[in-house]
Amino acid sequence: MAGTISLARGWPAPECLPVAELADCARAALQRDGTTILSYGPASGYGPLREWAAERHGVDPSRVFLTNGSLQGFVFLAQRLAPGRRVLVERPTYDRPLKILSALGAEIVALDCDDDGLDPDALESALGSGEPPAFLYLLPTFQNPSGRTLPEDRRRRVVELAAEHELLVLEDDPYGLVRFEGEAPPSLHELSGGTTAYSSSFSKTISPGLRVGWFVLPEGLARELEATATGTYITPVLLGQATVYEFLQRGLFEPNLERVRGLLGARRDAMVDALGRALPDARTSHPEGGYFLWVELDGVDVSDLFARAEAAGVTFVKGADFGGGPDTLRLAYSFVSPDEIGEGVARLAAALPAAV
Amino acid sequence: MAGTISLARGWPAPECLPVAELADCARAALQRDGTTILSYGPASGYGPLREWAAERHGVDPSRVFLTNGSLQGFVFLAQRLAPGRRVLVERPTYDRPLKILSALGAEIVALDCDDDGLDPDALESALGSGEPPAFLYLLPTFQNPSGRTLPEDRRRRVVELAAEHELLVLEDDPYGLVRFEGEAPPSLHELSGGTTAYSSSFSKTISPGLRVGWFVLPEGLARELEATATGTYITPVLLGQATVYEFLQRGLFEPNLERVRGLLGARRDAMVDALGRALPDARTSHPEGGYFLWVELDGVDVSDLFARAEAAGVTFVKGADFGGGPDTLRLAYSFVSPDEIGEGVARLAAALPAAV
Repeated sequence: MAGTISLARGWPAPECLPVAELADCARAALQRDGTTILSYGPASGYGPLREWAAERHGVDPSRVFLTNGSLQGFVFLAQRLAPGRRVLVERPTYDRPLKILSALGAEIVALDCDDDGLDPDALESALGSGEPPAFLYLLPTFQNPSGRTLPEDRRRRVVELAAEHELLVLEDDPYGLVRFEGEAPPSLHELSGGTTAYSSSFSKTISPGLRVGWFVLPEGLARELEATATGTYITPVLLGQATVYEFLQRGLFEPNLERVRGLLGARRDAMVDALGRALPDARTSHPEGGYFLWVELDGVDVSDLFARAEAAGVTFVKGADFGGGPDTLRLAYSFVSPDEIGEGVARLAAALPAAV
Repeated sequence: MAGTISLARGWPAPECLPVAELADCARAALQRDGTTILSYGPASGYGPLREWAAERHGVDPSRVFLTNGSLQGFVFLAQRLAPGRRVLVERPTYDRPLKILSALGAEIVALDCDDDGLDPDALESALGSGEPPAFLYLLPTFQNPSGRTLPEDRRRRVVELAAEHELLVLEDDPYGLVRFEGEAPPSLHELSGGTTAYSSSFSKTISPGLRVGWFVLPEGLARELEATATGTYITPVLLGQATVYEFLQRGLFEPNLERVRGLLGARRDAMVDALGRALPDARTSHPEGGYFLWVELDGVDVSDLFARAEAAGVTFVKGADFGGGPDTLRLAYSFVSPDEIGEGVARLAAALPAAV
């Protein structure tokens, strides 16, 4: 197998993308509602898709805010709330929000996690002293980068602590629907009776290139971010949102999700198998869904391994990029084929100092 | 004619939108290049459209930066360059950049304009003292809000002054192609041999809802804004950009532009005629293209007129919102029909204090 194998890239494999269906949906959406889609419109996004999300979450559509990908919405929220304030995150967590918060001059407080995700005691302790935080950002299901999922009892405690301390919680949930097995715990949003903030995206369930993220926000915050969006891009790209809406209306979402689950579940299996063979002593997470798997290599300098691995034709992301320890790394199984995953993990194992 | 007539809204009239053609283009783009369009991709946008713009402007594609509408690109540029610095603009100028610059803590220096647009002497004077400005933002053709166009001799002087003072010029040109009559002067970008920065958009020539803006930037600045875009939305919405590209490839752009020019030229004529009849003493610009016409009503308190006009069933934007004088206003002829324009202007005249 020639060429570098990317276990770094958190993209869906190309065969996950329902290209032919989306081509028909884009045309149909424009034929049905073209003048609306092609004009300026609401900064909160395409009305019918806001209504879909509102119904899904049992909230008023005015609380739904659609963005050009969910990261854009996080930027708006962080611009509004984070500058000069404490923001709580998991350690490790998604690297892009860390960079955004850092650039905005937030004080990032990274809370300890274990195999079950965020430790609620760490949250309680952080809330017990210092200035009240602007918000807590967490990915409770199939977390990026760790693949970990917060169990229901911990979710309940997080929600209770948030209520007690009037803490805004932003639950980022792009991976939750990409579940291969097991039962989904209730979302923090559900457990809180709809009071916490929630974000998700169609990037992992339909297509990332359409860039459709959605937020469910407290009413006041929704209006504030809408004003920011108006002053930034006037209207998000309605064509992507309307194409997604058409896809949903045609009943294509669930069958596509099943297909995607199958494609990615096979990749997760391939990675777990390969790790069991090639790195039997590594501590790894065993995610029931999502894109990523977390590896701890006791005593290994992962910075050094990174360079060796690149030379050996495999890439990954260092755990340190997510605030993780120097002996951790993130492996993505979403993008390359099961065979490439097997070969990539073998190359990684061969690049370990002991094997050199 | 019932209902409020909007001479405020700077939108294309719905009949300007080539809905059926774009529906076919969206599908064809996805059928041709779906995997690329539906995946994450370059933060600078869809490759083939960048190449189109690069060829149009005679620059390397690496200098072309596509954004979700051109305002988004202005925000990136302003975030990067404006905080705590002087930024030169025209007085009056587009209100959204004023708000963006203000929120970023820039010191806005509004330069005097006359019927021919920016006064180069005012620019020279501003460059002669104080800290070097971060950049000059100007709309030299069919300016928003004034409809004015900077003549070639002034363009040459602006370019010379910019070169002399190493001033970054951002020439915002969304309206230039929507010309009903007369000869287009060369762009500042052309006159500078490609060294000034340039931005435009397909909002006025194809569709605003697709949100496709483009920038031609100095190479280093292009890379910086690309990094900001990556950290904000990873990839812009490729579907809108690919749909525009398909529209261009099919040779639909020029015929559509001719059609749009006809539709909007008739509206400009209707507004000029109506103003001549109803407000013969008002000083008005006579734009050869674009969306807007500037009105000066000597001695009239336009704030007061605004409320009276709303009550009389017509809206506009106060010139003060653009940094203009208290007796100025912007009328948009782009959105409503020629008949509504006639009626709207009649209502406006009837709302004037002298007529009450």
